[in-house]
Amino acid sequence: MLMGLVAVLTDFGERDFYVAAMKAVIKNICPSAEIVDITHHVEKWSIPDATYILSCCYDDFPKGTVFLVVVDPGVGTERLPIAIRSRNYYWVGPDNGVAFTVARRDGVLEVRIAENEKLFWKKRSYTFHGRDIFAPTAAHLACGFDFRQVGSVLENPVLVDEYGVEPLEDGLAGYVVHIDDFGNAALSITGEHMNGAGIRYGEVVAVEVKGRMFSLPFVESFGRVRIGSPLLLINSCGRLEIAVNQGSAAELFSLSIGDKVKIRKKG
Amino acid sequence: MLMGLVAVLTDFGERDFYVAAMKAVIKNICPSAEIVDITHHVEKWSIPDATYILSCCYDDFPKGTVFLVVVDPGVGTERLPIAIRSRNYYWVGPDNGVAFTVARRDGVLEVRIAENEKLFWKKRSYTFHGRDIFAPTAAHLACGFDFRQVGSVLENPVLVDEYGVEPLEDGLAGYVVHIDDFGNAALSITGEHMNGAGIRYGEVVAVEVKGRMFSLPFVESFGRVRIGSPLLLINSCGRLEIAVNQGSAAELFSLSIGDKVKIRKKG
Amino acid sequence: MLMGLVAVLTDFGERDFYVAAMKAVIKNICPSAEIVDITHHVEKWSIPDATYILSCCYDDFPKGTVFLVVVDPGVGTERLPIAIRSRNYYWVGPDNGVAFTVARRDGVLEVRIAENEKLFWKKRSYTFHGRDIFAPTAAHLACGFDFRQVGSVLENPVLVDEYGVEPLEDGLAGYVVHIDDFGNAALSITGEHMNGAGIRYGEVVAVEVKGRMFSLPFVESFGRVRIGSPLLLINSCGRLEIAVNQGSAAELFSLSIGDKVKIRKKG
Repeated sequence: MLMGLVAVLTDFGERDFYVAAMKAVIKNICPSAEIVDITHHVEKWSIPDATYILSCCYDDFPKGTVFLVVVDPGVGTERLPIAIRSRNYYWVGPDNGVAFTVARRDGVLEVRIAENEKLFWKKRSYTFHGRDIFAPTAAHLACGFDFRQVGSVLENPVLVDEYGVEPLEDGLAGYVVHIDDFGNAALSITGEHMNGAGIRYGEVVAVEVKGRMFSLPFVESFGRVRIGSPLLLINSCGRLEIAVNQGSAAELFSLSIGDKVKIRKKG
Repeated sequence: MLMGLVAVLTDFGERDFYVAAMKAVIKNICPSAEIVDITHHVEKWSIPDATYILSCCYDDFPKGTVFLVVVDPGVGTERLPIAIRSRNYYWVGPDNGVAFTVARRDGVLEVRIAENEKLFWKKRSYTFHGRDIFAPTAAHLACGFDFRQVGSVLENPVLVDEYGVEPLEDGLAGYVVHIDDFGNAALSITGEHMNGAGIRYGEVVAVEVKGRMFSLPFVESFGRVRIGSPLLLINSCGRLEIAVNQGSAAELFSLSIGDKVKIRKKG
Repeated sequence: MLMGLVAVLTDFGERDFYVAAMKAVIKNICPSAEIVDITHHVEKWSIPDATYILSCCYDDFPKGTVFLVVVDPGVGTERLPIAIRSRNYYWVGPDNGVAFTVARRDGVLEVRIAENEKLFWKKRSYTFHGRDIFAPTAAHLACGFDFRQVGSVLENPVLVDEYGVEPLEDGLAGYVVHIDDFGNAALSITGEHMNGAGIRYGEVVAVEVKGRMFSLPFVESFGRVRIGSPLLLINSCGRLEIAVNQGSAAELFSLSIGDKVKIRKKG
């Protein structure tokens, strides 16, 4: 099952030596490892944003991929470092819920504390466990190290309290969970929720955000409306999305992560 | 001729799961593939910007490279997915002109509709053909899949209407085709055009943009003028470029893609 | 000792074809080379910023790594192209001090002018020696080319005048050397300097910047103070850092690279 692929997700940005140091450590420990960046532009310190991004692409990766997930606002506190074995993947990062919440969708087999210091890097810091603990542990797993030797079993890993969906008398309420680089706003509402609410492609939907109301066509893709016009669609992660054809919905409607959005079938 | 190299160009940015999903799909389908990012910061939805960037570096890549080119404002409409075989390379993306226009410089041998669903990814969406159609088709080609099995031949692929150069009585008129990360503005005018107009290094050139006139030295490189001073040079893609030594010409002269620029030899 | 790893550091940004062209050239010349990005977001034209970033991660890379270091404000002038062999690594770039200053920490064995035109790329420009000279020279070294054939020995390579530390009657004065993507400001002052000055974790430190005074706790990590509160810590590169827990110290205190900072033990 092992391919030696390490997929890396952080909120480090790309201006510093942080991502490079993690990759250097990986190549030092496991020269055959191949590294794929998921993104390093998670909204800084945002557990929900990291969870959404990882959940949307983890199952596109080959079996055996090691996910190195380092959004770590609690670095240097008592939060534990963990490693997870799920049905098809390994996951390494801080115990703050991101990796565990997504790994559960794959079927978690075992969670261990990443405490085997023999695996750690030669450098030690209080602020960069990505380099010192997580990357080396991930590299060892990518090169076939026995998962059970990573550390002792952890019984109750942290789970992210994900944004949910609430039924309304005449529709659904959800939350903005991610705003992409185009300005599209993904919601916690899924295509199944829309189906359940009896809202179909081609209908016009009443949308309420921050006390403002507007009507949007629910269609398959951007090109179904004119350039500059807003729409609702099911995005490539299966979520309802507020979008603008060749424009930014986040700007047009002043949307931010966490905003509550009410959706109603139009009369 | 095949090396298994896939070079990826998009306007997706790097904040989301989009680029990662395409890479994951490629590694899933063709584990031996190596992936090189060209850029994911093409000006959003800009066919001319994508064409310029790709045209400047495609011939630096090894023979057999598969170019995965996904700037796709028309996703979800009737625009076709295509694959191209040229003398030295393969190209996969939407039929909007970017790939075909650049592939022609290499010598196009065959254009096919990327319609072989056996090659497609397990996920299907209306908004992300990069993951569902283009990346998997590119991955199969990188691993040696027979090009003729991709789909039926397409006779009239779309060609980009590239910015041209117009002769003036006493000079040349061209257009800004790209603004780089330093603020240098590349024009549609080439070094050959400058030669043809009899303008040589060391001369001072009259430049007219948006009704404003200024005089710039036409020199070999940035360091030939003082720090902060503007200049004209032939850039590393063979284009005339308005630049500032350690500064931003785009800011200094308020330049945007598409601006018309007139160049005249100074009296 | 050779692994074929090429680690790339530039100030090119990622919007253009520049980084892609260098990678394409490397894969063309040395197909077995693996490429790792350090960063392409060095502060533009900043020799000190490039030096800091490279110094913080070079020794995480495997032995034999070739560092391709292209922050090159002097491109097209008489500044020389150089290649360096140090105890564990190779380094290629312009003779402006970045590579040499960091290579000295590894122990420099030999510095040569990168003048062997047989190694150069087929394209030649006055403005992009990264593609035409540095990347191809680095690629040849990654594939085992004899270092002595790169060019003649250079006796006096340029050294960066790095920001220092000055003793005060009652403390230390240093300079801001880097501001990271989170807004943390790294200083030229190290953990050893703090030890020497008798300042220990848990103490409160008087900090003076631009005539303003404030008191900060000197602690191990971000999580030791409340979210939004400032602190001093030793960062993962061994430098004293002005930080804010889940916030930007650079914004809070209006810090820029080069700012002088005075540190005094509190009464």
